[in-house]
Amino acid sequence: MSEGSDQALTPELTALVERFRSGQRAALARGISVVENERPGFQAFLHEVLAGHTRARRVGLTGPPGAGKSSLVAALATLCRAKGERVGVVAVDPTSPFSGGALLGDRIRMNDLATDPGVFIRSMATRGSLGGLATTTNEVIDLMDAFGLARLFVETVGVGQTELEITGAADTVVVVLMPESGDSIQAMKAGLMEIADVFVVNKADRPGADRMVREIETALHLRAGRAMGSVPAHHGVDLSGGAAKASSGSDPGAGDADWKIPVLTSVALTGEGLDTLLETLDRHRDFLDQSGEMVERMRERAARRVRAVVRRELGKLVWARPEAEVLLAKGLDRIERGEATPYSVSRDVIEEFNGS
Amino acid sequence: MSEGSDQALTPELTALVERFRSGQRAALARGISVVENERPGFQAFLHEVLAGHTRARRVGLTGPPGAGKSSLVAALATLCRAKGERVGVVAVDPTSPFSGGALLGDRIRMNDLATDPGVFIRSMATRGSLGGLATTTNEVIDLMDAFGLARLFVETVGVGQTELEITGAADTVVVVLMPESGDSIQAMKAGLMEIADVFVVNKADRPGADRMVREIETALHLRAGRAMGSVPAHHGVDLSGGAAKASSGSDPGAGDADWKIPVLTSVALTGEGLDTLLETLDRHRDFLDQSGEMVERMRERAARRVRAVVRRELGKLVWARPEAEVLLAKGLDRIERGEATPYSVSRDVIEEFNGS
Repeated sequence: MSEGSDQALTPELTALVERFRSGQRAALARGISVVENERPGFQAFLHEVLAGHTRARRVGLTGPPGAGKSSLVAALATLCRAKGERVGVVAVDPTSPFSGGALLGDRIRMNDLATDPGVFIRSMATRGSLGGLATTTNEVIDLMDAFGLARLFVETVGVGQTELEITGAADTVVVVLMPESGDSIQAMKAGLMEIADVFVVNKADRPGADRMVREIETALHLRAGRAMGSVPAHHGVDLSGGAAKASSGSDPGAGDADWKIPVLTSVALTGEGLDTLLETLDRHRDFLDQSGEMVERMRERAARRVRAVVRRELGKLVWARPEAEVLLAKGLDRIERGEATPYSVSRDVIEEFNGS
Repeated sequence: MSEGSDQALTPELTALVERFRSGQRAALARGISVVENERPGFQAFLHEVLAGHTRARRVGLTGPPGAGKSSLVAALATLCRAKGERVGVVAVDPTSPFSGGALLGDRIRMNDLATDPGVFIRSMATRGSLGGLATTTNEVIDLMDAFGLARLFVETVGVGQTELEITGAADTVVVVLMPESGDSIQAMKAGLMEIADVFVVNKADRPGADRMVREIETALHLRAGRAMGSVPAHHGVDLSGGAAKASSGSDPGAGDADWKIPVLTSVALTGEGLDTLLETLDRHRDFLDQSGEMVERMRERAARRVRAVVRRELGKLVWARPEAEVLLAKGLDRIERGEATPYSVSRDVIEEFNGS
């Protein structure tokens, strides 16, 4: 890494790399801030500390607000701590107590975790530039990984785009639902089904849990049947968009190497079902490792990262040039007068950049 | 628009421009497909039909799943139709009956609208490449506008990033909540408060509606007090990210020119409160026009569009070159062997592009 403001390591960051490598907790916190704020040299910093590192078990939890994702993460993290694992938690869910959208009670429940030096919790704001969010979030997760946290939990709310982003961030995606969740969750299920490696019906002490489990199992079965009839289980992966991931499949008869999506139950607040859930998470990661799918997923993840970084960097290169800002300002005037459109203005900006 | 595959109008699209301008409904549908699928020449097509056009009243509705956004849109659209306005509806909410995540009952309710030739409904998939989603969604809205639909309703689910994207797409943002919505909505309110021009407590015939209205009003009042004490009402707008919008403020004492965010109630299914809501929407748009803020917002919107299009185009230009794909493939091998990181690989790709 040599030239370009974002590609060169500043003296401050050179020192930070050392402190990060020596395992200083404050260096991780500082590193995350550097990345989140895209401080000069942050990519060089990432390059330095990431080289060769990707060992953590990354678990993504997603689902509708109120399903108890945060409580589940807190409970799982506590279990992992009891085994001596160091744990990282990233919350990109605006309704999560981890990320600040919290009621007092939730916050109190998180306190034990937050004061444990073996746990590193970071909440990510959901605001920010388009496309920038996910890239930076993933980079923060990478940092935690490189720091040596062995188990990473990423919590996102399961609606819209974030549910897809999580497939890029996590090895194992857990979709958390709850009984009595009504029609909005029914409606969401289709999208969630495509990304789930494991389903958990949390708050399973409430009425309707068994019915919900059966419904999900039926839906999975129908989907598997359709998949068998039409497309191959491991359909193609579009590396360009970041939306797709290799289906781990749940097709009956598609071979022993396939992962059958389990539908579990849990009660995060009492701990019921959590041992089984954690075992299942480990079993899924083992499956990924042994089937070769882990290597494939890592490669997809890296490809997406390269494309995202290229996009980010090119954008910066264009707009760092005063000529581009001048063209933009003039273009906005012309758009206002009806003499141009964003398309003609962006063409001008790109032509100027390419000709420079 | 001359050179470059996405900048040149194909013969097919030249014909489409004519049919679009003559008001053929099928041409709008076809145009939207062209844009959504980023068919060759789609930007040239947009350039042709958008020039000089931005007249529709764009209303964004956002809020948690289950608040009744779709029913509200359907009811408002019906009211507008009664006044003779042509209406466009864009649903980017995965739980919306408009966009397919629907129960049978909801679908039936939408049927009257869907068969009205003065109404154009389009649902947008929430999947797709990062950053691409919002740009294309906004372009579809622009198309409906250019087609002459006088009133556009954009429905998104109010969690995470989409709630910010809506501020770029709509002139007036309505945050729809419901009584009894519990803690998850409480938690979301902070983020929603920042983007709301109007609050509506829908399903107001349910218990707790009045309390909810008072809670929101109190929160708005507290926020306004804070804003007065610290930052100016019209704080700076960051054109670079697409996240911020000019605050319309609700600060007491900050001048007559300010918009006080109203908190209304409605029952979409019976029509209660809808006349007042529609009046309020028009009043807000008039406020924007008269205060000069509309011009400012249009300019911000155009700037964001230019930046997004530049990003999209540059990305395409880079990856259209075989050299870039070769560098990526080799880079992925090196990352796999721990010899490189996405940062060094993207640097290589950019250097090759810039040197070409």
